[in-house]
Amino acid sequence: MVIIMNPEATAENISEVIKAIEGAGLEAKIMEGAQQKIVGVIGDKTKMASVAIGAMPGVDHSVEISKSYKLASREFHPQSTTIDVDGIKIGGGEPVVMAGPCAVESLEQLLSAAEIVKKGGAKFLRGGAYKPRTSPYSFQGLEVEGLKILAKAREKTGLKVITEVTTVEGIAPVAEYADILQIGARNMQNFGLLKEVGKCGKPVMLKRGLASTIDEWLNAAEYIMNAGNPDVILCERGIRTYETYTRNTLDLSAVAAIKHLSHLPIIVDPSHGTGKWRMIKPMAFAAIAAGADGLMMEVHPNPAKALSDGSQSLTSENYFEVMRGVQKLSKLMREENLNPIVE
Amino acid sequence: MVIIMNPEATAENISEVIKAIEGAGLEAKIMEGAQQKIVGVIGDKTKMASVAIGAMPGVDHSVEISKSYKLASREFHPQSTTIDVDGIKIGGGEPVVMAGPCAVESLEQLLSAAEIVKKGGAKFLRGGAYKPRTSPYSFQGLEVEGLKILAKAREKTGLKVITEVTTVEGIAPVAEYADILQIGARNMQNFGLLKEVGKCGKPVMLKRGLASTIDEWLNAAEYIMNAGNPDVILCERGIRTYETYTRNTLDLSAVAAIKHLSHLPIIVDPSHGTGKWRMIKPMAFAAIAAGADGLMMEVHPNPAKALSDGSQSLTSENYFEVMRGVQKLSKLMREENLNPIVE
Amino acid sequence: MVIIMNPEATAENISEVIKAIEGAGLEAKIMEGAQQKIVGVIGDKTKMASVAIGAMPGVDHSVEISKSYKLASREFHPQSTTIDVDGIKIGGGEPVVMAGPCAVESLEQLLSAAEIVKKGGAKFLRGGAYKPRTSPYSFQGLEVEGLKILAKAREKTGLKVITEVTTVEGIAPVAEYADILQIGARNMQNFGLLKEVGKCGKPVMLKRGLASTIDEWLNAAEYIMNAGNPDVILCERGIRTYETYTRNTLDLSAVAAIKHLSHLPIIVDPSHGTGKWRMIKPMAFAAIAAGADGLMMEVHPNPAKALSDGSQSLTSENYFEVMRGVQKLSKLMREENLNPIVE
Amino acid sequence: MVIIMNPEATAENISEVIKAIEGAGLEAKIMEGAQQKIVGVIGDKTKMASVAIGAMPGVDHSVEISKSYKLASREFHPQSTTIDVDGIKIGGGEPVVMAGPCAVESLEQLLSAAEIVKKGGAKFLRGGAYKPRTSPYSFQGLEVEGLKILAKAREKTGLKVITEVTTVEGIAPVAEYADILQIGARNMQNFGLLKEVGKCGKPVMLKRGLASTIDEWLNAAEYIMNAGNPDVILCERGIRTYETYTRNTLDLSAVAAIKHLSHLPIIVDPSHGTGKWRMIKPMAFAAIAAGADGLMMEVHPNPAKALSDGSQSLTSENYFEVMRGVQKLSKLMREENLNPIVE
Repeated sequence: MVIIMNPEATAENISEVIKAIEGAGLEAKIMEGAQQKIVGVIGDKTKMASVAIGAMPGVDHSVEISKSYKLASREFHPQSTTIDVDGIKIGGGEPVVMAGPCAVESLEQLLSAAEIVKKGGAKFLRGGAYKPRTSPYSFQGLEVEGLKILAKAREKTGLKVITEVTTVEGIAPVAEYADILQIGARNMQNFGLLKEVGKCGKPVMLKRGLASTIDEWLNAAEYIMNAGNPDVILCERGIRTYETYTRNTLDLSAVAAIKHLSHLPIIVDPSHGTGKWRMIKPMAFAAIAAGADGLMMEVHPNPAKALSDGSQSLTSENYFEVMRGVQKLSKLMREENLNPIVE
Repeated sequence: MVIIMNPEATAENISEVIKAIEGAGLEAKIMEGAQQKIVGVIGDKTKMASVAIGAMPGVDHSVEISKSYKLASREFHPQSTTIDVDGIKIGGGEPVVMAGPCAVESLEQLLSAAEIVKKGGAKFLRGGAYKPRTSPYSFQGLEVEGLKILAKAREKTGLKVITEVTTVEGIAPVAEYADILQIGARNMQNFGLLKEVGKCGKPVMLKRGLASTIDEWLNAAEYIMNAGNPDVILCERGIRTYETYTRNTLDLSAVAAIKHLSHLPIIVDPSHGTGKWRMIKPMAFAAIAAGADGLMMEVHPNPAKALSDGSQSLTSENYFEVMRGVQKLSKLMREENLNPIVE
Repeated sequence: MVIIMNPEATAENISEVIKAIEGAGLEAKIMEGAQQKIVGVIGDKTKMASVAIGAMPGVDHSVEISKSYKLASREFHPQSTTIDVDGIKIGGGEPVVMAGPCAVESLEQLLSAAEIVKKGGAKFLRGGAYKPRTSPYSFQGLEVEGLKILAKAREKTGLKVITEVTTVEGIAPVAEYADILQIGARNMQNFGLLKEVGKCGKPVMLKRGLASTIDEWLNAAEYIMNAGNPDVILCERGIRTYETYTRNTLDLSAVAAIKHLSHLPIIVDPSHGTGKWRMIKPMAFAAIAAGADGLMMEVHPNPAKALSDGSQSLTSENYFEVMRGVQKLSKLMREENLNPIVE
Repeated sequence: MVIIMNPEATAENISEVIKAIEGAGLEAKIMEGAQQKIVGVIGDKTKMASVAIGAMPGVDHSVEISKSYKLASREFHPQSTTIDVDGIKIGGGEPVVMAGPCAVESLEQLLSAAEIVKKGGAKFLRGGAYKPRTSPYSFQGLEVEGLKILAKAREKTGLKVITEVTTVEGIAPVAEYADILQIGARNMQNFGLLKEVGKCGKPVMLKRGLASTIDEWLNAAEYIMNAGNPDVILCERGIRTYETYTRNTLDLSAVAAIKHLSHLPIIVDPSHGTGKWRMIKPMAFAAIAAGADGLMMEVHPNPAKALSDGSQSLTSENYFEVMRGVQKLSKLMREENLNPIVE
């Protein structure tokens, strides 16, 4: 941390700041600039949590320099992490695709979707049993019934299952039926939930919050890891901006940012990221070219009849075409050693 | 809802759309524009939740026209709501001030803060016992111990207590000790939590999410009201924008928007809204002038020693000066009948 | 400037950075942190413009500490500036109101608006003769004809005139007819235009760009001042955020920020800031309470017939009511010494 | 346009609205909803510019349905446009790369950059002679001297030249020396400049504004096209969001959006889009995979010595590696018929 003093800060102000830093068991260094004095803080920054530097007389503002997450950082763990879900590897190799309907609506719908998903080459079936919806009057999911349907589809197709958990009480049933637990964007800073999925014993996919910075996202991963679960997969799903043409703005540069800052695998969800089925193909191709470890996409046997998010779901035909491109691009990149990530 | 068809939409596309609308028990009306055909949907829009209009062939996009919340809307309940907390009225009259430290740190700290708060004229003591923090390594609050300290301060000063609840399990203890339960910005769309505080039997203050629209905010209030709790107070606390000088951008126009769209009281938190103690006074004055029903402010006996958010906390001296202005402005507005809200 | 090195930066990397700083005629100071080394730069920061520090090996990122504007800063000029426009003082005293239609449409319309504006107590008449419009097919203004109409209205009413200039060629005619030249939000970083109005010899009102930071805004003022014109008035008019209920999000905390960072007067435009006439009153009241030096508001004799921005224009009746409140609030604040700005 | 009336709108309010629409030479159609009445407007929407519908009594708000641009729209011109610059085709075929330093600094620097640019396979040399800079004290470019240096580099290498024009007076010299005129992000809504480059007789590359919507961007293109110049190339260069890790958020979904809404070619600038040289490679790959017609990238013979934007410039080695990938990906996509754009 670097503390920038006001131009009018007195010698006493500065010595108070130094006293506070040293009182927290840290070392302070002063740097005298042309206009302003700066005080640098050396040592474990978490100790600074107990000092309200910004409120001290003479302080203009302070700037964080080191990161507040550790377990999730590449500095702490230089090698990229691969997460093994029953033999399927996420991270570091071939991209993994997770596909399926937004919501589990019925056994027929899900089985029909699962057949398509499998035929296209995805390894994971997605489908929401618990749906967080903006309005209390929208379809809220089939809950445990939906989980059982997902398990049946897994049994029938051999696909692994990923599904969202939205409450602490939901963790046990979801962990019973799913291979990966998903934390949705709206719950990215539901810290109570993060701490609990940190103890669930299964891999967790953590979606980026609607308006979360990359730093907040990695800190959210840190909550899960710090609670004992190292198997965290990140998922970029678009951020909220002023642009209204797309539902969100898919931030593909987050893929490169995460690869630089963290060792965790990252996948991309172009369905939520754009909100338009027409944009899934270009954004899926782009995500793979940018170095994403996988994709999450909405596929529905009949999007026009979907109970939620139909406009961002692919038909089987579109999905097959997306998968063909994803596989070709990914193969080329491995064969030609086109590594998008710059160390 | 109005559905805008593509210029190339065929007659068959349009008749499919109409069939889907009628299939949902609604009425469809066609309007032929110069370039595009439009289909209007008449009837209870929640029925449209089961139709994925955006995924139907020939559909360009659809536009919502009516609101998806009802209990929270002024249309449904034209008269402004006043919430009575043990004799203290929130909404419609004199502005109510809630003040205190960001976090409950110790009995001494809280009692000392409570004396200041009371002396300045606020009616509610705030203070977090459960703290949602970006990093798992930051101070997370004293939990139940903090609640007991709050209760002691209430006993000693007669101030009412408002404090945040962050988990479903926390609702019972918080409801036991607090007069108002606060839902924080990060939990505004924690729907499981909203449904449960809807059954707690105490008033709830719902902070606006970090990047939530006014529409999403009122829908979140609807979750609580729909679960049986009509006593919802809204709190504007700044939204996330590109500007980095302030911690958030305090959206005071939200006060006017809420007064137009809803009957619920709204208060403003200039501490979190700006992140800078210097800005609390101007923004508190502005909030009152804009018609807010109250204020929430951070006051700390010694901001430089605060365990969280010291830079956005007022000293006692500053707090008294803010209160003096708030009372003068509010008195003038009532005496001179300066109603900022235009019906 | 503070330069943060990578954890893996070598001694050679650091010595290259120091060499570059010293080569620019500046002094470098090293601070060794627990995880990272930091290099501070001391001296006139504009010299660093010729060093691409971010591209040097071993550099993680750099953080600016001192401001890049000088003439516009309060550090350079501690006393608040008052701008005298033919006897009317902007800054430091009674708030100044600028009102009138969005666009000059005809002599009748403008004279009729000017009568209302004067009757309500505003000192300046606003009205666009050159209109920057999103679409080339929208009304683009009456140009020089419009300027002449403004001059006629001034003659008749004694009101001063403020109007927008959009091109370098337009500066001479606008400076001939207007008392203050306005630079609109879309041109805030039209640096060629800024340099030229810096030589026009008349006060300039600089609106904040649609998505400009406070730092960029003050740098834009610096362009005008550096070209020789010290008479710059800032105008907050709302920024672009994700919220769509309002046309823009009026950032009233910018008033407090500007008062802290700069000595220049700042006024607020709640018409463009909200895009809704209903919100002008609450936001005008709030701006005054926050310490703004004045207001710019759209008033139209018949908003429903306005050629542009009718939905954000006040009728005469609404305008009189806004003015009544503004005067009452401002009088109270001066009488009671309610200074919203904290030094 | 669809006009949504208030629930309390009277029959008279509605008939006034209809009268206003018909008065503008358009047709009105009423649709009676359950809660609200809607009035649709049929005919050429530019005629509505003279009606301030939003200010009429009983009107809640209005929603635009048809686009306000025409020449730039795909509806008007269904076939994708290819722009021929002296034999080099932009749009529809092989991606075109524009590379070079941010600013022209000297003849030596530019020739050295040009050799690298050519060797890597780019067809265009970029380099700024007029630099729009946030601070008036930053390097502002070599101006005409810079243009002459660009022309010399073209002569020597055979590369085409693209450079930015920032003022109306600059158009003639830039058009004399450059093959494509660039309009920078800060000038995207400098309408005076747009109208004039519409008459310059050379192709224009229009960068997206820092916080411009896709709709505003296409309207800006419309200004140029409407002034007589059909040869407009769009360039996505990142938008302003709350995220601070990257300089801007590169919106690659804009590529797909533009391909759907317009027939104009679009290229992507990952240098400005991310502000970090490490991110240029993944974002360049992603842009090609998303269907962009080309790339603009900053390449500098010695980024650490660059007078501007060094941290977002590639070294020759990095540039060659980016080009290798771009060519492989683009070849694969053409050979395998991987069309990212869904009609």
